[in-house]
Amino acid sequence: MSKTLNIGMIGYGFMGRAHSNAYANVNHYFDLPQKVVLKAVCARDREKAQAFADKWGYESVETDWKKLLERKDIDAVDICTPNNLHKEIAIAAAKAGKMILCEKPLAMNVAEGEEMCEAVEKAGVPNIVWYNYRRIPAVSFAKQLIDEGKLGRVFHYRANFLQDWTISADLPQGGAGLWRLDAAAAGSGVTGDLLAHCIDTAIWLNGKINDVTAMTETFIKERTHTATGKVEKVTIDDACLFLCRFANGSLAQFESTRYARGHKALYTFEINGEHASIKWDLHDLHRLQYFDHRDQGNLRGWRSIHVTDGDHPYMSKWWVPGLSIGYECGFVHQVADFVEGIASGKPAGPTFRDALETQKVCDAVLNSAKSGAWTKV
Amino acid sequence: MSKTLNIGMIGYGFMGRAHSNAYANVNHYFDLPQKVVLKAVCARDREKAQAFADKWGYESVETDWKKLLERKDIDAVDICTPNNLHKEIAIAAAKAGKMILCEKPLAMNVAEGEEMCEAVEKAGVPNIVWYNYRRIPAVSFAKQLIDEGKLGRVFHYRANFLQDWTISADLPQGGAGLWRLDAAAAGSGVTGDLLAHCIDTAIWLNGKINDVTAMTETFIKERTHTATGKVEKVTIDDACLFLCRFANGSLAQFESTRYARGHKALYTFEINGEHASIKWDLHDLHRLQYFDHRDQGNLRGWRSIHVTDGDHPYMSKWWVPGLSIGYECGFVHQVADFVEGIASGKPAGPTFRDALETQKVCDAVLNSAKSGAWTKV
Amino acid sequence: MSKTLNIGMIGYGFMGRAHSNAYANVNHYFDLPQKVVLKAVCARDREKAQAFADKWGYESVETDWKKLLERKDIDAVDICTPNNLHKEIAIAAAKAGKMILCEKPLAMNVAEGEEMCEAVEKAGVPNIVWYNYRRIPAVSFAKQLIDEGKLGRVFHYRANFLQDWTISADLPQGGAGLWRLDAAAAGSGVTGDLLAHCIDTAIWLNGKINDVTAMTETFIKERTHTATGKVEKVTIDDACLFLCRFANGSLAQFESTRYARGHKALYTFEINGEHASIKWDLHDLHRLQYFDHRDQGNLRGWRSIHVTDGDHPYMSKWWVPGLSIGYECGFVHQVADFVEGIASGKPAGPTFRDALETQKVCDAVLNSAKSGAWTKV
Amino acid sequence: MSKTLNIGMIGYGFMGRAHSNAYANVNHYFDLPQKVVLKAVCARDREKAQAFADKWGYESVETDWKKLLERKDIDAVDICTPNNLHKEIAIAAAKAGKMILCEKPLAMNVAEGEEMCEAVEKAGVPNIVWYNYRRIPAVSFAKQLIDEGKLGRVFHYRANFLQDWTISADLPQGGAGLWRLDAAAAGSGVTGDLLAHCIDTAIWLNGKINDVTAMTETFIKERTHTATGKVEKVTIDDACLFLCRFANGSLAQFESTRYARGHKALYTFEINGEHASIKWDLHDLHRLQYFDHRDQGNLRGWRSIHVTDGDHPYMSKWWVPGLSIGYECGFVHQVADFVEGIASGKPAGPTFRDALETQKVCDAVLNSAKSGAWTKV
Repeated sequence: MSKTLNIGMIGYGFMGRAHSNAYANVNHYFDLPQKVVLKAVCARDREKAQAFADKWGYESVETDWKKLLERKDIDAVDICTPNNLHKEIAIAAAKAGKMILCEKPLAMNVAEGEEMCEAVEKAGVPNIVWYNYRRIPAVSFAKQLIDEGKLGRVFHYRANFLQDWTISADLPQGGAGLWRLDAAAAGSGVTGDLLAHCIDTAIWLNGKINDVTAMTETFIKERTHTATGKVEKVTIDDACLFLCRFANGSLAQFESTRYARGHKALYTFEINGEHASIKWDLHDLHRLQYFDHRDQGNLRGWRSIHVTDGDHPYMSKWWVPGLSIGYECGFVHQVADFVEGIASGKPAGPTFRDALETQKVCDAVLNSAKSGAWTKV
Repeated sequence: MSKTLNIGMIGYGFMGRAHSNAYANVNHYFDLPQKVVLKAVCARDREKAQAFADKWGYESVETDWKKLLERKDIDAVDICTPNNLHKEIAIAAAKAGKMILCEKPLAMNVAEGEEMCEAVEKAGVPNIVWYNYRRIPAVSFAKQLIDEGKLGRVFHYRANFLQDWTISADLPQGGAGLWRLDAAAAGSGVTGDLLAHCIDTAIWLNGKINDVTAMTETFIKERTHTATGKVEKVTIDDACLFLCRFANGSLAQFESTRYARGHKALYTFEINGEHASIKWDLHDLHRLQYFDHRDQGNLRGWRSIHVTDGDHPYMSKWWVPGLSIGYECGFVHQVADFVEGIASGKPAGPTFRDALETQKVCDAVLNSAKSGAWTKV
Repeated sequence: MSKTLNIGMIGYGFMGRAHSNAYANVNHYFDLPQKVVLKAVCARDREKAQAFADKWGYESVETDWKKLLERKDIDAVDICTPNNLHKEIAIAAAKAGKMILCEKPLAMNVAEGEEMCEAVEKAGVPNIVWYNYRRIPAVSFAKQLIDEGKLGRVFHYRANFLQDWTISADLPQGGAGLWRLDAAAAGSGVTGDLLAHCIDTAIWLNGKINDVTAMTETFIKERTHTATGKVEKVTIDDACLFLCRFANGSLAQFESTRYARGHKALYTFEINGEHASIKWDLHDLHRLQYFDHRDQGNLRGWRSIHVTDGDHPYMSKWWVPGLSIGYECGFVHQVADFVEGIASGKPAGPTFRDALETQKVCDAVLNSAKSGAWTKV
Repeated sequence: MSKTLNIGMIGYGFMGRAHSNAYANVNHYFDLPQKVVLKAVCARDREKAQAFADKWGYESVETDWKKLLERKDIDAVDICTPNNLHKEIAIAAAKAGKMILCEKPLAMNVAEGEEMCEAVEKAGVPNIVWYNYRRIPAVSFAKQLIDEGKLGRVFHYRANFLQDWTISADLPQGGAGLWRLDAAAAGSGVTGDLLAHCIDTAIWLNGKINDVTAMTETFIKERTHTATGKVEKVTIDDACLFLCRFANGSLAQFESTRYARGHKALYTFEINGEHASIKWDLHDLHRLQYFDHRDQGNLRGWRSIHVTDGDHPYMSKWWVPGLSIGYECGFVHQVADFVEGIASGKPAGPTFRDALETQKVCDAVLNSAKSGAWTKV
């Protein structure tokens, strides 16, 4: 096993920064069998790519992702391009024998995702998708509690991802920062962007989703497109809500929107079990709310747990109790787990195959919203 | 106009106490054109009825509600029996020319509700249904803000009513305190008991609901019935979730359950408008959460408004800022408004006709849960 | 023992309403050996007194408190006049053999309080002071937890009573609603009005206070006096802070002010014990915050207990879990306990003697604020 | 001006990590005129120092801080040793012409601090003390609001720093991780460790403190000393409370303790002004609570501001609205400001001279706790 894991990253936007931070810092906090090296960053605009490389310490720059894949000094490829490029790059990277860390959602749809899974599995390369919220310590702690059986039979799951940044009708669609409003680049609107996170966490915590009934809405029907300068029809979903049943018999509601005034990035979930319930909220990501019915009756209450102790997931690596860490930690933890997964032979998830399950739910949701019928996943 | 309003109440359970408290206290706090008099309470068991009358100061006792309706000294009849008796009593009371204050939900179903509406409208008697949460000051304040146009175009509405008191499989169904678990007495489970509250508030605040898609579940399939002593099939819905569209174009999710561990009576709603959003929560009923996008950008935040000032609805009648009032206040306020509505000729709502709208949504929800299809209200 | 307890109340201001509500409702909720009767209300202005009597159901009116004391049909006298009248009335009432329910603070100072204690003890009449916050269910529950030993050795106590209603320099002093700003009527400012509540609770929960060091401030030095119409020196303390040691070795800080913008009536206390801590806040009076170090390590957190269950103090008398009661409940509970105390011979506190302890701390605080020295209580 | 700023750090404990993280990441997020280089780390144990250097990317290792000061390739010295070594190293570093970044508190006492100030001022070297909480974005935002005049005249300031990690009598004193319990190494207990933070922020936000009255306590009187293995008297203060007056006329209370069960590192402050109030809490460090009396009357409430927008201090450098950053950010921001201060010639604070003010308050507090008298700062 090499002492280093050399990363080649494609893309340098918001997620490029979040991933770079993880690569640059993971060895400061975690004792890993490999040192992660920021080997190359790839983007079409050489100047911008070089500026990014200088800032984050990438050793080199590429402008053609195919060239990046040819380089022998690259062990792993990080795909943080818009969604419509995931498939092509991932399949090529798999053929080139590279490990792959791919931004979410896995693909534009299930068909693409299937191809991508086959490619990485055929190539036998380690692969992971950046569903970063799994590794916020409070969320990982929720998983631990569920695995320990603390909740008992689960009755209800509910999750929301609420934002408010596209309410203005003056906001254009498409272009650099706004490809998420263009279905051609993004595949869908909030479903792939936000709900996909909720669904990934939900499947991880509560198991398979069987069937769904959904509704979507595009509140602002037309926006200027930055590519054409013309007012064009908006093709994404601004809001998406669905009800579903999990295989374990629990009932759920999911909602995501960019029209919930007052919420910046309010990802919340709550799980109600027979014995205990848990709640989490991205806006206060270092806390887990926990209610245990087994507590002495008159002393029962929701406990606000500040998930910053040494015996909370990942937290022994950071500061001391009471001192919280930020959004970026989820990415650091994912790199740590990915590296350890390579060494141990027990790959860290979510793999492409895991992420395909989320894609299936997303597709079922979008189909149900069109048909108006309950739809099997 | 008589100086007194003489009340005859049928039933003396939980709601009987809440209503009695309202009748006994309303003139202490409100300057009304009539003094409310606790004239008679009616229940089959004379001894229990007498004990109740002694406790609350009812002047007399009846054991047959038909006799109560015959009494000339009774101006208004309060129906707080199980749901399956509402229709018969209400129609008879209307025929007897009595004003009617009826517990919610209005009826067992829309058909019954229609008959009741026709009866009271034909008789021309003042009528109201006890959707008490409208008149919690923070909820009334939400209505005021919406009517003032503070929110602008509404995009989203969401409401939950979460309880956890029926999770134990040992809990029986039917009988005195548990008729709510018996569909024969209650009509439905959480839909009529809890969701009906959420729907009434929602229609009041956000207008008509067009169509719904719903799911229900009965988690515990069989329970001992207190009437028979035998294990019998549970016929009510333990949980009910639905998505819907309002006539104003907003999207919504509603959920109610008695299986959400950690929540005693968590009725919450949130409304997201173009300019502002509001949230409320029965567990902290004296607060309204308010977010206004028109605030200076870097100072925007959810305001936790302690709705206890003299310029908040109803609050000038009570204590001083910072001192909260309890659950029972909603009933007191309803009686005050009912009395003032009689005097002014502008009847306080929700009238039977208003409550029928809620019944229509409940029926559509239950039908959709059976059919699996989107259902028009 | 008489079947009724006939109340004669002197004063009809804010506290007159709060007490009347308690008398009018206590038998609705509590099964007591006596029925409380609103026999007479006494105030100098007959018209206003009569209007108050009509509103609350007092059977008669007096305009001279001495006449009220002479009446044989009065069992108990309620003193809710400004503080400077407490002593004279209480001593006369004791001599007349009346039970006494006196508003807080007990007196203008310790010397007055001593006389009052001697008078009631000599006369052997039941006596109680309206430190109403003891009987908010969450506060009573705190007492129960402490008595059970849940906290272990106590290290810290802190309490605040923060308001913001006198910040405007335009507010006058003296007169009907504003006698609290006039030291001649009130004795002191926030010390007797607000801190006295904090001190009563603290002594009840945590034992005797040994010594104090304090500071006071009058932020607005002059205000128009409503009696004279002239700008006069303000003689009360606008703010008062002190540090102290309890006999049990714990350290404490207390603060009260009417200049804490954003707080209407924020009475809070927190107690930190070896094993557990508790917090309470009048703005959300139905909750108790509880932290228990004996919980499983990674699941420790502050529990937000909604003190509305049947096994919480007083709550079995009211509604169902999740439904909160308001500020006025503390008075209802005090009347219930007072009546039961008479019957059982175990008088409910705080008696005059108990309240004298609070007076002693108040006096020590005011003396320390003047001298700048630590002062023994 | 050199393109790089070469750091030599002395010490490698908890603070060594926090500072190293700042040096390693500051150029990733901030566009600075200099690149910060982790040039050398110094500690007596070469092996541990080397391990630390390997982890964080320090280029070299020293075992004698005097040698570090002699190196010409070191521009700035970072002192993160126990407090009793600050003075000697800082004075030597100043003489060697090094810039200095010194851990807080500045010194063991005012006398030492004076010497240090004179040394850096005579040498003319940039100097700063690590009062890191100033640069948590929400705290910096509080400063901005105050400087803009949002609060108006200030009436009250209150701050607490509550922990609970030394309650167990089994915890030893002295030694590697526990020098903070040994007055010989730490100078004082919570006063220098925790209250110093509160005082620094308070002076920064609210100006000079005039005089204080204080109390301290050592709850556990004896602990095993790790150096001797014997049970020895504990010499530090476990808890310290004080009242004070600021030069601007406002009144304040401060408290710190390691015996507040339930609080890990709860640093809170609240400031009440004529027009507005603000609150902050380290446990939820990304939020600022803000109340503005100028809001429409019935809509006034505490706003919970999620300080993560691009127009909040420092936040444009990080992620997007709603995504919070952690405890470590304060150090990153301090390095950024320090570097910019060098370039601009406007030194970033708190300088040694600024920190001396905090030291003066700490000394006055400890003296007052001994004498029992109000003490001038």
